[in-house]
Amino acid sequence: MDFTIGLAGLGLIGGSFAKALRRRDSDLCILGADRNEETFSAALADGAVSARLDHDSAKRCNILFLALFPDDILAFAREYVPFLQKGAIVVDFCGVKQVICDVLSPLCEAQGCLFVGGHPMAGKEKWGYPSADAALFDGASMILTPQPGAPDAAVLLVREICLMAGFGKVVQTSPQEHDRIIAYTSQLAHIVSGAYMKSPTAELHAGYSAGSYRDLTRVAKLNEDMWTQLFLLNRSNLIDEIDGVIAQLEAYKSALADNDSSRLHALLKEGRERKERLG
Amino acid sequence: MDFTIGLAGLGLIGGSFAKALRRRDSDLCILGADRNEETFSAALADGAVSARLDHDSAKRCNILFLALFPDDILAFAREYVPFLQKGAIVVDFCGVKQVICDVLSPLCEAQGCLFVGGHPMAGKEKWGYPSADAALFDGASMILTPQPGAPDAAVLLVREICLMAGFGKVVQTSPQEHDRIIAYTSQLAHIVSGAYMKSPTAELHAGYSAGSYRDLTRVAKLNEDMWTQLFLLNRSNLIDEIDGVIAQLEAYKSALADNDSSRLHALLKEGRERKERLG
Repeated sequence: MDFTIGLAGLGLIGGSFAKALRRRDSDLCILGADRNEETFSAALADGAVSARLDHDSAKRCNILFLALFPDDILAFAREYVPFLQKGAIVVDFCGVKQVICDVLSPLCEAQGCLFVGGHPMAGKEKWGYPSADAALFDGASMILTPQPGAPDAAVLLVREICLMAGFGKVVQTSPQEHDRIIAYTSQLAHIVSGAYMKSPTAELHAGYSAGSYRDLTRVAKLNEDMWTQLFLLNRSNLIDEIDGVIAQLEAYKSALADNDSSRLHALLKEGRERKERLG
Repeated sequence: MDFTIGLAGLGLIGGSFAKALRRRDSDLCILGADRNEETFSAALADGAVSARLDHDSAKRCNILFLALFPDDILAFAREYVPFLQKGAIVVDFCGVKQVICDVLSPLCEAQGCLFVGGHPMAGKEKWGYPSADAALFDGASMILTPQPGAPDAAVLLVREICLMAGFGKVVQTSPQEHDRIIAYTSQLAHIVSGAYMKSPTAELHAGYSAGSYRDLTRVAKLNEDMWTQLFLLNRSNLIDEIDGVIAQLEAYKSALADNDSSRLHALLKEGRERKERLG
């Protein structure tokens, strides 16, 4: 079949996506681009990408995935979308959706293309192409935020390609709802982990820590260049969540300060029950 | 050899300890006690314990381990230590040490016994004898806080028994230092996890969460009866740590509120570097 995928950005997410698709289909044409030439060459040598994505080859793409840092997505899209064929689908993989969708949706529409926002719910504490892994998305959730009125067929195609890359499920929502939930499930988790890591007592943890320290601190190891951009693009939701967790911490502190066993017990019980109920 | 171990409490920690020792030595005499008769019968049927620990059999114990809830340790020790032979060693497994050591150390000394505080750095989100696991302590750290002037031979014996149970290392410190560090590495982690779990947004996480949510919320599932006791016995250290993490969260929030990219970047970078340096 003459189906061609374009993929901009071959870091942890883009590189893993190329490898995951390649794992399933050795003949699939994946045109790749990366601002780092060494990264592109490594992906080409691995067979993860078939050839180079440039202005000329862009017109062959039926679908273009943008796995770039937030601040680079808009510039890349402005440059490349005019070279795409009419009806081509553009999907970004950015961790915030409203600010991206607000720009890319009309930009694609003006060029006769279709835009579908995406956010792969997967990652790890290492990044860059050398960390890319064909199994990164296996069983993970893919969130799609299609532009209003996007044809079902386009969304279904994106969905199928995601399942082909190993995702276990694909959920669909609005960019606003995505950003509100992600501020908690992902962004707040990274902030809390970093804040926890900064206790002076952390210097002494060796020999005095186990699974709870390990789990709480894992995502403190993040790519600060990317996360600074993501956090600032979702400031309002994230500030609300930080306020919320501070208020909760104050409740525990107050029960401790008052030596109030039954209030402390109730707070702990509520936390356990929520975790058991919500998973 | 005519060496006899007494073990009070056959829940997750005590049950796992009995199973771990039994795994290494099928002939070792382990006398067990549990306030729940069904638990005792199950451990006896499994061969994890050899026979019942009671006032009469207590005199045969060379060493007595107390794997009880904090509030039950002192009562048990007051009742049983008078029945021990002179020179017997008493070890408790409580997650706080100063309040326990302050009472058990003179109590044991008055009866001609030796006291060594202990805290096994292992656990899981299920508890009770049915969750006990011979491999629970494999590779974990065991913290010992021996009474001042405890003979080296007694500490060495406790250490050997811990290594026999699978612990990967044994560290020694004062009860005060233990409580200060544990307030952060374990207690604060459980509080933060519970506080994080309480965001109203958690209701919506399914399909929108991945490893960071999973890791942050794991220890929200705790035994609130036990942890209420542990937290209240280490209030002052724990309040200090809660204050610290709130101050850190405020710093992130302030950088976000000011839309200050370089301050936010510096906060995130510092967290990553700390995690990389301290592990």
